[in-house]
Amino acid sequence: MKNIVTIGGGTGSFTLLSGLKKYPVDITAIVTMADDGGSTGRLRDELGVLPPGDVRQCLVALSDSSELLRELMNYRFERGGLKGHNFGNLLLSALEKIKGNFSGGVEEAAKILRVKGKVVPVSEEKMNLHIKLKNKQVVKGENQLDHNKDVRKYGIDKIYLRPNAKAYKKSIEAIKEADMVIIGPGDHYGSIIPNILVKGIPEALQKTKAMVVYVCNLTNKKGQTERFNLDDYAEAINGYIRKDRIDYVISSTKNPDEELIKVYEKKEGKGSLVMFDNKKEDKRGYKIVRANVLCKKRTSRNKNDSIASARSFIRHDSDKLAKVLIELLEIKNRKLIKKII
Amino acid sequence: MKNIVTIGGGTGSFTLLSGLKKYPVDITAIVTMADDGGSTGRLRDELGVLPPGDVRQCLVALSDSSELLRELMNYRFERGGLKGHNFGNLLLSALEKIKGNFSGGVEEAAKILRVKGKVVPVSEEKMNLHIKLKNKQVVKGENQLDHNKDVRKYGIDKIYLRPNAKAYKKSIEAIKEADMVIIGPGDHYGSIIPNILVKGIPEALQKTKAMVVYVCNLTNKKGQTERFNLDDYAEAINGYIRKDRIDYVISSTKNPDEELIKVYEKKEGKGSLVMFDNKKEDKRGYKIVRANVLCKKRTSRNKNDSIASARSFIRHDSDKLAKVLIELLEIKNRKLIKKII
Repeated sequence: MKNIVTIGGGTGSFTLLSGLKKYPVDITAIVTMADDGGSTGRLRDELGVLPPGDVRQCLVALSDSSELLRELMNYRFERGGLKGHNFGNLLLSALEKIKGNFSGGVEEAAKILRVKGKVVPVSEEKMNLHIKLKNKQVVKGENQLDHNKDVRKYGIDKIYLRPNAKAYKKSIEAIKEADMVIIGPGDHYGSIIPNILVKGIPEALQKTKAMVVYVCNLTNKKGQTERFNLDDYAEAINGYIRKDRIDYVISSTKNPDEELIKVYEKKEGKGSLVMFDNKKEDKRGYKIVRANVLCKKRTSRNKNDSIASARSFIRHDSDKLAKVLIELLEIKNRKLIKKII
Repeated sequence: MKNIVTIGGGTGSFTLLSGLKKYPVDITAIVTMADDGGSTGRLRDELGVLPPGDVRQCLVALSDSSELLRELMNYRFERGGLKGHNFGNLLLSALEKIKGNFSGGVEEAAKILRVKGKVVPVSEEKMNLHIKLKNKQVVKGENQLDHNKDVRKYGIDKIYLRPNAKAYKKSIEAIKEADMVIIGPGDHYGSIIPNILVKGIPEALQKTKAMVVYVCNLTNKKGQTERFNLDDYAEAINGYIRKDRIDYVISSTKNPDEELIKVYEKKEGKGSLVMFDNKKEDKRGYKIVRANVLCKKRTSRNKNDSIASARSFIRHDSDKLAKVLIELLEIKNRKLIKKII
């Protein structure tokens, strides 16, 4: 079986993994450890554990267990001192404490949830995301990305981690042995880049013989990736890898409904759809795979933050996205790449 | 397979069930719902759920899952807002919320834990234990038994439930269909009597054709069962059943080490071992089964309140107790009772 490695966290990885797991491939999900908001942030602060939230979503995506167990993992307590905690986060924190390390706890959770593939934290070291704004101000904490008004006002110059966390060895090994590495989809500064900032990850990406595919976001975020087009994303990621390593970028051919765009732009400002500049083709170090990967299903935010919870209105379709990626993997095998791109 | 029903809660039921599950019998554990202390009390208050603590212990006792999963169920968070909560209690509370009722949640937990047999709440209705002291004062809350100084000072006259909870139908059915009903071991006012106070339970015990066995406690509690001997316990239970329903009482032939007795008496006062009055034989409506059921293993309180946690120093041995009970069940079948008692 071919080895596929995904790099991301949270809802984006959930979408991707839910589709990929239907194929006979060996999946390793590498997950960001920079989250520090909500239930995850409280557990980090109070128990001194590593952030469980993103790992939880990946475990649920790859789980072959009952619908109830998956629902349980995402169940959010609504009252009292437990209010806001996801049950799955508590499970991962308790298992970390029992096993004495985070990755051991994740492995046990994977057994309980009958996970197909592996979920691997990008690092086992504690890290805090630092956000340098364009006015040179430094804001600390991943949760500040969406909640600090200065981020929206001044915009992000760059982000970095303190302490300078080193990669967990299994995440490096997975990248080395991969046939395909898929970066994204996911929040650019919240989920994607914090993985690539971890010491050892850029080096592993530079060296791996895997095909590296970037699933480009569909929408921009004000102050963060404001007015980014597809190339801005891909080049930014290559920049953090410190090598033009991306082979393919998946780009959506479909636009969301006008009505949805309006809802989104009301929050994130005009021009928040990621555009594709079709004049630039010759200058790119990567190929663009234009495909219909847009989700047409409408979901509403579920009170339990369930699997179907739509953090963003405009998102990728699990099955369509997986199909394109698997085709790309197959085509590589047959050395027919040029024909379809 | 023969049907065995146990009535109790907490550590006593844990001990009993851990031994019984090794035999080819069909076990239903009926569990008190009156607990309101510690983690359980906070979950009752804050989430409005039924008390999970006693059920958790019975589930773990009957679980065929991995040692780690059993350890996880008893894991107690040590810091922050979660401090004091058992993971298993959180699991049961989350499942109750998802399923919409406590017994449904317990059934799902039993699946996750691969439980052999059934664990059934005595009632699905909210109840509060009321303790009437000998000075006519009424103290509210099961947790007050061990924490209210007036209980120790004045002693208990009687206990009752408010509201007047009705039994869960599956607990009544289990008693009706039982070949043997085992009451205890367990805290007399904290675990045993609160089951028998539930409307429908005395009636079911009165009518069942099952052999009813009472596993007599080994020690007394100051202010609660001070200076009780074996017959005081058995008659008190018959009193709450409102019929001389106990067929057999299991009595320990062995006394604990002098050193252990001293430790216990330091806390609970002199004369806190349950005595057996061997002159009374003719007047009893039940037979005494004298057997070696004492645990000789010394355990220390584990920081995670693990299975081995010794709430009391002097306790029954799981395997010895189960062996005696199964022998009693077999003997009934062969109609040889008279020979051995």
